[in-house]
Amino acid sequence: MPRVLILVRRLGQDERRLVEEYIGGLAEPLYIDDGIGDEAEEAVAALVATARNPLVREILRRARNLRFIQTLAAGVDNIPFQDLPEKAVVASNSGANAEEVAEYAVALLLAAAKRIVLLDREMRQGIWRVEYPRLIRDSTVVIWGYGSIGREIARRLKPFKPRIYGVRRSGGSDEYVDAILKPDEALEILHETDFLVIALPLTRETRGAIDREVLRRLRHGAVVVNVGRGPVIEEEALFDELSRGRLWAALDVWWVYPQRRGEETFQDLPFHLLENMVMTPHVAGTWPGYREKLLRHALENLRRFLMGEQPRNIVRREEYI
Amino acid sequence: MPRVLILVRRLGQDERRLVEEYIGGLAEPLYIDDGIGDEAEEAVAALVATARNPLVREILRRARNLRFIQTLAAGVDNIPFQDLPEKAVVASNSGANAEEVAEYAVALLLAAAKRIVLLDREMRQGIWRVEYPRLIRDSTVVIWGYGSIGREIARRLKPFKPRIYGVRRSGGSDEYVDAILKPDEALEILHETDFLVIALPLTRETRGAIDREVLRRLRHGAVVVNVGRGPVIEEEALFDELSRGRLWAALDVWWVYPQRRGEETFQDLPFHLLENMVMTPHVAGTWPGYREKLLRHALENLRRFLMGEQPRNIVRREEYI
Repeated sequence: MPRVLILVRRLGQDERRLVEEYIGGLAEPLYIDDGIGDEAEEAVAALVATARNPLVREILRRARNLRFIQTLAAGVDNIPFQDLPEKAVVASNSGANAEEVAEYAVALLLAAAKRIVLLDREMRQGIWRVEYPRLIRDSTVVIWGYGSIGREIARRLKPFKPRIYGVRRSGGSDEYVDAILKPDEALEILHETDFLVIALPLTRETRGAIDREVLRRLRHGAVVVNVGRGPVIEEEALFDELSRGRLWAALDVWWVYPQRRGEETFQDLPFHLLENMVMTPHVAGTWPGYREKLLRHALENLRRFLMGEQPRNIVRREEYI
Repeated sequence: MPRVLILVRRLGQDERRLVEEYIGGLAEPLYIDDGIGDEAEEAVAALVATARNPLVREILRRARNLRFIQTLAAGVDNIPFQDLPEKAVVASNSGANAEEVAEYAVALLLAAAKRIVLLDREMRQGIWRVEYPRLIRDSTVVIWGYGSIGREIARRLKPFKPRIYGVRRSGGSDEYVDAILKPDEALEILHETDFLVIALPLTRETRGAIDREVLRRLRHGAVVVNVGRGPVIEEEALFDELSRGRLWAALDVWWVYPQRRGEETFQDLPFHLLENMVMTPHVAGTWPGYREKLLRHALENLRRFLMGEQPRNIVRREEYI
């Protein structure tokens, strides 16, 4: 029976039962928590939570016969593509938490638009100062990265009655937006954009795509929301625009992450001193019970591979190397 | 020509032109900023921003021939009904800012559900602690007070896919909710309610309506959002439930308000020390340019009265005395 590396740490009994439910009879799962030795070499597939972990990286390096890697995250940017066997394909878990991340993105957008964090901070100091909330109605929202998450964001914003534009390379159209633009076309409407919501994966092409030029074109007072990946935005350019008070931002994804649990974590630039921003620690894709949903979605795709069917969400390797 | 008291302070030239646009030729406006003397007695109608102001109260007391009072606010709870001539009717500005208040209510609900204020506070201290956002999808939302604001709230929450119940005395049904319940019926679903959104006016009947009993019945972890009026909730009961960590709250309306601009303001109980709440200073009905919209909506109704038509939004006096 083919072997599959389950590189997700601290899987509970219920979660191991889920693995059995989806791939039992098709493959023998090898769990990272049980220790994985030379058997790694024979494995044909792997399920990966995060390849930032050094042990996971080391096992992946030894697994020279991998043909399929399934991630638990929607993004595959932490996968060490350069170390993988050439024939291995990588599938993201795109769509597994699209609705949940979209809820969170809308929450961040509204928190910034309505100045809620700032007003709360003042109220707690006894300061009763009215700062006018900004309206979504009749505003212009640009959703940069119009995949499964972007679409769920648009769907939720629609009853607030803004103009909504999605941005993606392939263009097209969709019922929830006024239009879908290609990135070049999107540049032309930034001057009338009130909310720029970023839901891009991190690839060679998107790294730094939201650069000084894009940010400068945004309307004064515009809010930048990021639930994609931090490095999609040029950190210094955003910090500059925020420092001079020209923009607002609400970020859930960052450039600097803690190396160890509980470690004090700040960015390279002091975003935490700015009043015109909302900061949260990469929680958009989590909720009570989120791991079960991600696991099921990922295992379903792994099962497709093991059954000889075409897996979904295969990423283009050349975009990540 | 009949005289109308314009009891809104600091009206700009543009705003006076609006008054002319709506009631010019029908009545002579007397502006509080110009000083109002004995002419008050002859006035047949008044436009009131807030009757909390002592000068406004005094003018209203002298205006013994008033037959129509139009407020700028959606709520009429600050009107001194006991001092008004018996034949005077009072019209609220209900609906003037329903969409805007609804935007804000959804923003508060999401800010609390997603723990955004708490997470932002920790991030600014270098603390990277994941607290799981709560989902709206598949949750139960009860909108207590299902008028024009409540309905706009439901419309905006619908694509998040919760169950939504509206609560109003008259019952009925509506496309945006699963059902509309009468207050007695609503008590029976509180134990499965995740979000209680209060959009009630403050009347004799609603004062303290959200009492210890209602709050106790709510599911553990439920979020109470209030964009109606503070005293609709029993302050001590809410504080108790919050202190013991059983509920969350997101409040824009309060029991204690500043008496003067810039005055340090705290509630009677130390809500500002609680982590499980979001506090903002009664801004839901404001936005850049909000006064023009409120003025137009109110003046339109005043015009109806002056034209001899039936004004809208007449409140039932007996509910306020």
